[in-house]
Amino acid sequence: MDNQKIPKPTIKRLAVYYRCLENILFSGKASVSSKEIADELGIKASQVRKDLSYFGEFGRRGVGYSTQQLLESVSDILGMRKIWNVCIVGMGNLGMALAVYPGLSKSGFFIKALFDNNPNKIGIPIPNDLSIEPISILKSVVKERAINMGVITVPAEAAQETADALVDAGVQGIVNFAPVRLNLPDSVKVEEIDISVSFRSLAFSISLHSGRRRE
Amino acid sequence: MDNQKIPKPTIKRLAVYYRCLENILFSGKASVSSKEIADELGIKASQVRKDLSYFGEFGRRGVGYSTQQLLESVSDILGMRKIWNVCIVGMGNLGMALAVYPGLSKSGFFIKALFDNNPNKIGIPIPNDLSIEPISILKSVVKERAINMGVITVPAEAAQETADALVDAGVQGIVNFAPVRLNLPDSVKVEEIDISVSFRSLAFSISLHSGRRRE
Repeated sequence: MDNQKIPKPTIKRLAVYYRCLENILFSGKASVSSKEIADELGIKASQVRKDLSYFGEFGRRGVGYSTQQLLESVSDILGMRKIWNVCIVGMGNLGMALAVYPGLSKSGFFIKALFDNNPNKIGIPIPNDLSIEPISILKSVVKERAINMGVITVPAEAAQETADALVDAGVQGIVNFAPVRLNLPDSVKVEEIDISVSFRSLAFSISLHSGRRRE
Repeated sequence: MDNQKIPKPTIKRLAVYYRCLENILFSGKASVSSKEIADELGIKASQVRKDLSYFGEFGRRGVGYSTQQLLESVSDILGMRKIWNVCIVGMGNLGMALAVYPGLSKSGFFIKALFDNNPNKIGIPIPNDLSIEPISILKSVVKERAINMGVITVPAEAAQETADALVDAGVQGIVNFAPVRLNLPDSVKVEEIDISVSFRSLAFSISLHSGRRRE
């Protein structure tokens, strides 16, 4: 597989570079160096240069990168010229939060359908012209609206069957918020999000800082 | 600063190792090799060994690690023996989702207070014996309940003033879900969560896989 060659941390960092470059462009800077990106994100400049080098030569030594061009290259690499039609399965609080999260459509991810099994939720209107539909019609809706990405926000015990339904309907990728590892065919990519990981990482930073436990 | 010496990606990976080790222990395996951890997470075994080596010698060559001991060591490193008392500011859908997210208390993060400015939300009872309180009493509540970590789930434009209030109240760390970079004193650690980063990372994996655009 091609994507085996590019380390997963690099893929993640590219997505973070994207956000950083947006900020830099927004602040009016027409050019940017790997050191500036690195400083902004608290990583090494050599790491930034290495990550970008996986995709050919962008910058010129001593001059840096054109912010605009680099942003476009990174968004191209990240598949952001493609339109992603997204459905969310499981309309609890998290599903609702994602349904109205403005950052997603801004990044090219358009929520096209919301599903839930709870009959009391079916038909509830959501701010952005959507309404909640029953999971029983997931497959036909995914096909009709050309949905290529699914988000799982159901409870852990329902996550695998939800994933199976999404795969059967033909999505190319799944963002999984349920705290279980999904069994998926190789052709379907998954991104697992465990929010407690971020809390642990913060706890660790605080412990190191305040405790000075490692010299 | 001590934590400057340990790369941020290592800190993040340790939090991921923790979850992986929990799964391995749960599956009944008493010992585990760096290769098994690496395979499970799709990274290199040499990376796992290097990450763990920042904290002294855990494993024995050829034998691997005791799963239980390694889990305990990692949780110790991650500051998980400490009790984290958490407050959430901003009780929209995301705040609500976090307030009832079972993964947090399981990981030692106990939600002790929920704040919002909307008078209609004040007093609303939440499943786990909490209710929503006004932000005006944040400082006294944080002190009374020994809250040491704050979560920001307010809209972007209110994030900095919320952070200032949390810092003033004495929290040690902030998990920030608002899509803005916060200005914070060095003594307060922050973990920024941008959910669209995960969507971009998934989009990239799919593009690489399906397009075979880079050889």
